[in-house]
Amino acid sequence: MRKRKVPDVVINRLPLYLRVLAEIDAEQSPIISSFELGERTGITPGQIRKDLSFFGVFGKQGVGYEISTLRVELCRILHLDRVVNVGLVGVGKLGEAFLRYGAGRQREVLNREGLIIKAAFDQDQQKIGRRIAGVEILPVEQLPELITQLRLSIIILTVPAGVAQSVFDTCVASGIKAFLNFAPVKLQIPAGIRVHHADFTLQLESLAYYS
Amino acid sequence: MRKRKVPDVVINRLPLYLRVLAEIDAEQSPIISSFELGERTGITPGQIRKDLSFFGVFGKQGVGYEISTLRVELCRILHLDRVVNVGLVGVGKLGEAFLRYGAGRQREVLNREGLIIKAAFDQDQQKIGRRIAGVEILPVEQLPELITQLRLSIIILTVPAGVAQSVFDTCVASGIKAFLNFAPVKLQIPAGIRVHHADFTLQLESLAYYS
Repeated sequence: MRKRKVPDVVINRLPLYLRVLAEIDAEQSPIISSFELGERTGITPGQIRKDLSFFGVFGKQGVGYEISTLRVELCRILHLDRVVNVGLVGVGKLGEAFLRYGAGRQREVLNREGLIIKAAFDQDQQKIGRRIAGVEILPVEQLPELITQLRLSIIILTVPAGVAQSVFDTCVASGIKAFLNFAPVKLQIPAGIRVHHADFTLQLESLAYYS
Repeated sequence: MRKRKVPDVVINRLPLYLRVLAEIDAEQSPIISSFELGERTGITPGQIRKDLSFFGVFGKQGVGYEISTLRVELCRILHLDRVVNVGLVGVGKLGEAFLRYGAGRQREVLNREGLIIKAAFDQDQQKIGRRIAGVEILPVEQLPELITQLRLSIIILTVPAGVAQSVFDTCVASGIKAFLNFAPVKLQIPAGIRVHHADFTLQLESLAYYS
């Protein structure tokens, strides 16, 4: 499917296109031009056409993109046309907050588009077996077996900085290729592994404009 | 300064340009072309030139942008050339996690670029007067006075969904114009007020591509 290396920033824009298309689809328009999509996303039509051309997706000249087809195509590209099982490691304050947040979003967004938080992991015996927002807490020692067994393919790291690298390495050794990292640490990342860092600083910096 | 309405997505890209410029500045190049900046940010040169032209910032034709000048200019546009005091309301699990996260980033990023978490607020008498990562917890009842007194200009909302609207309204009435909202609730937002929603869903969706 990936004929040539697609820049990460292009991939990062696809969920935004998908969200806008979902909004417009509800308004029951059949077609959208890259100009309109640009108006709604704040991304230039040229950038949108270039982004989509990476995947061989082309609108009709002078007409635009068929919305329902483009949604299906973007879901397929992002692997959201199937269930994607997510695991969370580290049920401290942040981990617990994330599970409750995830639960709030689950019905609204996560579930609908294939993402599901399947299990959480911790080392604290007191926590194991408990459920938070419906997600069971499992022993972190069994992470390698359970990653395979539960078919987890994305891991959210909410562990303390000191253990982040070793937990990360364990997950990589167990076949995980995609991470959302909340631990405030610079990880050593092997080639072929994708890590998104939860970064509130950029958001706060752009808010300063409005302050 | 704001001659015409700048789209929010343009503002959201400025901190990214600033970050890349900071990285390059450390490498001691004096000039960057919009093409190079595009390579580093994954944004097309055309989009970059359009974004900067909103603020009357133009590179020299065929040469590029002077990095140090562009950094100063972007800081000025984002109001990061002065101290921006941030307050956090709701010191539950997420609020506490954020304060510790903020403390980790403070030295690295927040402080340097003018953003500082000045105070936290909660209604729990047990918590008031405590400090988390150096930030004092103050009584939420005094929020209106303290917003003025401490010159807060951005509020991070980490309160439960049920009280988010009323806390938000109080802050707006006290002059706050910019919010980072973690409460899983759709707020009623008056004109002229900017709210960024912490949204991990888009990040997880783009991660699915790599999974």
